[in-house]
Amino acid sequence: MGDNILARTTDLAKVICEKYADKGKTAVDATCGNGHDTVWLAERFGSVYAFDVQKSAAEATSRLAENRGFNNVTVICDSHENMGRYVKEKVRLVMFNLGYLPGGDKNIVTESHATLKAVDGALSLLEKDGMICIIMYPGHWQGAGEKEALLQMASKLDKSKYHCVCTDMINQPAGAPEILFITLKT
Amino acid sequence: MGDNILARTTDLAKVICEKYADKGKTAVDATCGNGHDTVWLAERFGSVYAFDVQKSAAEATSRLAENRGFNNVTVICDSHENMGRYVKEKVRLVMFNLGYLPGGDKNIVTESHATLKAVDGALSLLEKDGMICIIMYPGHWQGAGEKEALLQMASKLDKSKYHCVCTDMINQPAGAPEILFITLKT
Repeated sequence: MGDNILARTTDLAKVICEKYADKGKTAVDATCGNGHDTVWLAERFGSVYAFDVQKSAAEATSRLAENRGFNNVTVICDSHENMGRYVKEKVRLVMFNLGYLPGGDKNIVTESHATLKAVDGALSLLEKDGMICIIMYPGHWQGAGEKEALLQMASKLDKSKYHCVCTDMINQPAGAPEILFITLKT
Repeated sequence: MGDNILARTTDLAKVICEKYADKGKTAVDATCGNGHDTVWLAERFGSVYAFDVQKSAAEATSRLAENRGFNNVTVICDSHENMGRYVKEKVRLVMFNLGYLPGGDKNIVTESHATLKAVDGALSLLEKDGMICIIMYPGHWQGAGEKEALLQMASKLDKSKYHCVCTDMINQPAGAPEILFITLKT
């Protein structure tokens, strides 16, 4: 993490996520990609479930977790839409880093309907004071629509039950990444 | 700070501000009010300048800093518009918590033109990788216009030089507090 955390969206997201860290609790990496966020979570939570629909990503994540000596990571090669089939306990934090796999096929991206279904699943797994963090990339194809769908969904969440905060880089081009945080208040 | 930092805007702001803390550097509390943020800054920075145009606020802040044993605080009873007259070094962090003095006269609020001038002054004091954090209250009279004026100003800042991030509580009523962060990148 650099000196200026506002300059990188993932750094900003992690500064907030860090505050929810708890070695006694469970976290989910809903888009594990190359596994960097998974091991970041594995250092901070008791147990981590990592999902990726791409076999190469799931394998890379398993390898990274193993190489780093983490035995608290369960990697699942399935869509994060099906999260609820695998995660049976309440979770403290769910991270989504949307878009395409870094270094992978840019045609394989998260899609609005699947993402909405996955976030809905994550909401039902959330414990009190737990949080969902979603990094959105409206600059890539489909990303703009996905962001709009997520913000629309979040803006309709019961305000007495959930607290939703969205970040906007107001002096950057329209495609700049944004973060949506959702916490369960009660 | 509670378990759920998203639920209180000031907690969320401080989680980010904390990352800019540096005992060797200077911070400014542009709206010191009762002095709580001033002493929070005094714990984390080498030197703190605290401004409030209201004498009662400046006195309360001086008392609080003294009671807590901080000798690195300079309280100035003048408008934060005149910040540059008093602060002669570059600063790492400037905090604005807009609106009215808690427990004070609700008719005495920060006003758009003065706030814009003060933020402009703060920008010229900022060191590289320094940050301005502005908590805005669009729910009070004048606050909505003040927020719009600030966002408009920030959205026009040179994107290669400044990074501006604004938070939006998208499922809360329109008057919910928002935070504007501005960092100097180069």
